[in-house]
Amino acid sequence: MTDEFQFIRSMERSILQTQSADISVGIGDDCAVWNVGGQHVLLATDMLIQNVHFDLQQMSFDEVGRKCIAVNLSDIAAMGGRPKTAMVSLALPESISHRDVQSLMDGIIQLGQQYQTYVVGGDTTSHSGDLIVNVAITGIVEGIPVLRSGAHSGDVLFVTGPLGGSIYGHHWSFTPRIQEALCLKGICQPTAMIDLSDGLASDIRHIAQQSGVGCLLDESSLPISEAVPEDLTDNERLKHALSDGEDFELLLTVSPEDADLVRKQKNVKVYEIGEMQGHRDSIMMKRKDETLEPIPDSGWKHHFD
Amino acid sequence: MTDEFQFIRSMERSILQTQSADISVGIGDDCAVWNVGGQHVLLATDMLIQNVHFDLQQMSFDEVGRKCIAVNLSDIAAMGGRPKTAMVSLALPESISHRDVQSLMDGIIQLGQQYQTYVVGGDTTSHSGDLIVNVAITGIVEGIPVLRSGAHSGDVLFVTGPLGGSIYGHHWSFTPRIQEALCLKGICQPTAMIDLSDGLASDIRHIAQQSGVGCLLDESSLPISEAVPEDLTDNERLKHALSDGEDFELLLTVSPEDADLVRKQKNVKVYEIGEMQGHRDSIMMKRKDETLEPIPDSGWKHHFD
Repeated sequence: MTDEFQFIRSMERSILQTQSADISVGIGDDCAVWNVGGQHVLLATDMLIQNVHFDLQQMSFDEVGRKCIAVNLSDIAAMGGRPKTAMVSLALPESISHRDVQSLMDGIIQLGQQYQTYVVGGDTTSHSGDLIVNVAITGIVEGIPVLRSGAHSGDVLFVTGPLGGSIYGHHWSFTPRIQEALCLKGICQPTAMIDLSDGLASDIRHIAQQSGVGCLLDESSLPISEAVPEDLTDNERLKHALSDGEDFELLLTVSPEDADLVRKQKNVKVYEIGEMQGHRDSIMMKRKDETLEPIPDSGWKHHFD
Repeated sequence: MTDEFQFIRSMERSILQTQSADISVGIGDDCAVWNVGGQHVLLATDMLIQNVHFDLQQMSFDEVGRKCIAVNLSDIAAMGGRPKTAMVSLALPESISHRDVQSLMDGIIQLGQQYQTYVVGGDTTSHSGDLIVNVAITGIVEGIPVLRSGAHSGDVLFVTGPLGGSIYGHHWSFTPRIQEALCLKGICQPTAMIDLSDGLASDIRHIAQQSGVGCLLDESSLPISEAVPEDLTDNERLKHALSDGEDFELLLTVSPEDADLVRKQKNVKVYEIGEMQGHRDSIMMKRKDETLEPIPDSGWKHHFD
């Protein structure tokens, strides 16, 4: 899979980032940003594949639909935006029933409507393979979109919820952090933000690389999800929190001045987990015994195995 | 397949068309229309599946990529719009080489750039199935978007190119009619427009149903593609022109006054093929012997078989 990631990066580089004056963000952030009539339009897409991203032995069609739009809503949240439309493409196994397709669509439509996001089109085809769902989402961001690239040395790192153990169920029932992002953006301008899809250890590298500054996380303040088994060793529990992936919490950086505003506010539950500092390749953890250790890039890569 | 079409329609009805004041067109046209900052933003998506929409025994990866974005560009053309961004999602067979993926992307990127359309994001996953490509496109339409629903009795029907035989190759090398649509929209406001994906016999029904008026086509003026074998009977050749699908020409209706402007202009090749008249279910053909016949709904349904 590392191979695949490298390939995608090389392909990204082959596509010019600044192709058009009104596209201010292209490939490489949670959403692209297209400036239309003075507004920042957000664009993102995610394709979810049976037996890669979801297992119909464990999830109902309704839950699959919910997850398919939730991961897209999470991309809009990561830019500080408000979602608006969704286009849904379905590759349907020949054996699927109309009722199951309706349940899938109900999952998509109902979660969308909770966030005033409307299904405005799509495409449907039967084929001989597994169920594949692509959602392409749009949104609007008021003010300045929050990118991955704006963090500075000294900025404080926050996360919107406990991490790890999503494999035990959270990955299909998580709440996209739309309201939380809007609320935080209402009290300050985060310098960088990303949604945690691959795992903290992996996703924090996107902020570090794109901002050009490393980080120091504090193990003792890292919130670990209740879904991570209690009877594991501290090291095993930490690994879950860093690497399980599909937490879909927001990771954000805030200037030291704004950090006080974030700490004092009562509307959004946030956890302060460290700060930005050092070289962009310096992704470090202060362990409970006060020693400093590099965090390996062991993010979960969108596979069950 | 009829069953599937009926199902999609019933699902469409279950999603409210006018969910939000700023979404002026939802499901049921070539694109959705979202009003942003005084602009009409167009949104469309198409998912193309190996062995359903393309055959890697017959087409190169570059040609597959080209077709995947071309069908989306055609949707933008059908609204009279100018395309802007594309998001590309790939489900990749495990056996595919990096070179083949690069060729696929080159096909997408290069045709896009011909129309100032830029790949701004996407999603890539390996899986155990066939190659699946989803493109979600955006565009802008200046002035009023051309819908399927605006045709009136007496309007004249035009098509932008000869029909039929796309199965012999045209379906992966067709020119999306972006320039033609912009040029026609520059000299008049077509009352309705659609791109011919399922075949004239099937697609004209969308205009008739949504506009509430039938049509009378003139067999002797119907342009039949050179790709349709010459040695077939007239009836067989006609059937190809009506039902082969994937012509990706534009079918448009124009008021009688505007029809003169369209006939006189020299910039876009168009063929006048009939007029709108009668009940919405009256889809008729004046045969060469002057008899009138109903045209069966035998549009090609996106399958090779």
